[in-house]
Amino acid sequence: MTPSTSRRNMLRGSAATAVLAAAGPALAGTAHAATAHAAPPPGAPHVGILLYDGYSLLDPTGPAEILARLPGASVTMIAEKRGAVRTDTRDVAVVADRSIAEVDRLDVLLVPGAGNRGTLGAMNNKALLGWIREMHRHSVWTTSVCTGSLILAAAGLLEGKRATTYWASAEYLQSAFGVTYLPQRYVRSGKIITAAGVSAGVDMALYLACLIAGEDTARAIQLAVEYAPDPPFDSGNAANADAQLKQRALELLAASQTASFGSSV
Amino acid sequence: MTPSTSRRNMLRGSAATAVLAAAGPALAGTAHAATAHAAPPPGAPHVGILLYDGYSLLDPTGPAEILARLPGASVTMIAEKRGAVRTDTRDVAVVADRSIAEVDRLDVLLVPGAGNRGTLGAMNNKALLGWIREMHRHSVWTTSVCTGSLILAAAGLLEGKRATTYWASAEYLQSAFGVTYLPQRYVRSGKIITAAGVSAGVDMALYLACLIAGEDTARAIQLAVEYAPDPPFDSGNAANADAQLKQRALELLAASQTASFGSSV
Repeated sequence: MTPSTSRRNMLRGSAATAVLAAAGPALAGTAHAATAHAAPPPGAPHVGILLYDGYSLLDPTGPAEILARLPGASVTMIAEKRGAVRTDTRDVAVVADRSIAEVDRLDVLLVPGAGNRGTLGAMNNKALLGWIREMHRHSVWTTSVCTGSLILAAAGLLEGKRATTYWASAEYLQSAFGVTYLPQRYVRSGKIITAAGVSAGVDMALYLACLIAGEDTARAIQLAVEYAPDPPFDSGNAANADAQLKQRALELLAASQTASFGSSV
Repeated sequence: MTPSTSRRNMLRGSAATAVLAAAGPALAGTAHAATAHAAPPPGAPHVGILLYDGYSLLDPTGPAEILARLPGASVTMIAEKRGAVRTDTRDVAVVADRSIAEVDRLDVLLVPGAGNRGTLGAMNNKALLGWIREMHRHSVWTTSVCTGSLILAAAGLLEGKRATTYWASAEYLQSAFGVTYLPQRYVRSGKIITAAGVSAGVDMALYLACLIAGEDTARAIQLAVEYAPDPPFDSGNAANADAQLKQRALELLAASQTASFGSSV
């Protein structure tokens, strides 16, 4: 055994090893153990994310990854009833740990988007819309990702306001709800912040993190999730996409939401 | 009621309404209904994502959002046992629909990353490592996000290879496993593709989508999830971060994983 492999064997597999570079006192453990299960510190945001049948997976989980890093924050997945809630493709389920009846106050409400089926289902669900209105009455921030803005609009929160949404829903948002669509990653109108499609929730959540905890913290969270995006292509902006690419994108979405092979495992 | 508000009322709330712009024949419904629950088409990838206690939420869910849009793809969340698997912050749980004992073949294996606790737990779990080796034997692609590469390395798959990982784990990956770390969003070594921290899984998944289904499809998926990233800050790249920002990022991660206020809902 060479000195090098010997060192490797010492490093490997020990439960005492820190696989991440040390963060100084904060990683010592005992400092934070004392605060576990204690009351949240004053100002610690309570973030609630509404799940409903057919949401798109990245819409709630991207922002949750960011907002859970805010000092003292809690992030709770909420649905009409507790339990597993399936995505648009039905491939994946996230657990709703609370029902809407159990949550009567949130600092931040986030409503994710979905395909046609999920979005229309939520837009026609009076219990969900009533709960959204009730949360909005006391929230510090009311937010949405993708077609989640259509659900906020159906709850009556966006009339006459400026907002964004999924690129393929922009016309509907404007014509059905009298909303001024802005083709931006996120749009703030008072305490309402809407994000564009799916992946835009991550950008919006960093902006929201800055509003809640300041720029230094938001910048540190961005580094914590190594968010220096560098996609292999540049095709994500609908403003630069031709009709054929848009058609293909919507076809892939539709096909992924109707053909289900999950049972073939 | 003005003609404008009348049109709005007609548009709103009808279950027959399409909230997304039409995608032509693909959205007609019957065309795809016929394929639902049928066998997957030849070449349709079966993607399996390994969950384990303490993974970081965006690591599995970002790539799942992308890969689920591949034609005919299935995405299955898998864990040592079926059921809800909690993230590093314990705020959120994703459901593992299959146990490792139920899955003996995958086209694509993805291993997400975690904080210290989750990563070390997986690195020391002989059942998980054995299953990873077995899946890798027959996989078309074996992939990881963030510290998931440390788990691939612990399974013996990365020795002498080039790979990437979470920025704060690069030194450990090199010294403990003889891996050459490359500070890139993703690194391909034969059929193994490793991604950098957390959010890099989305970039890696688009690259993988291109390898599996070609550039036209990958570009359309990028548009389907409106991935034209535009974060409010530019602090996501560790190569440009000073020591203070790195310290703050690691402190926020550590604090989010020890202080639990979830029960305050």
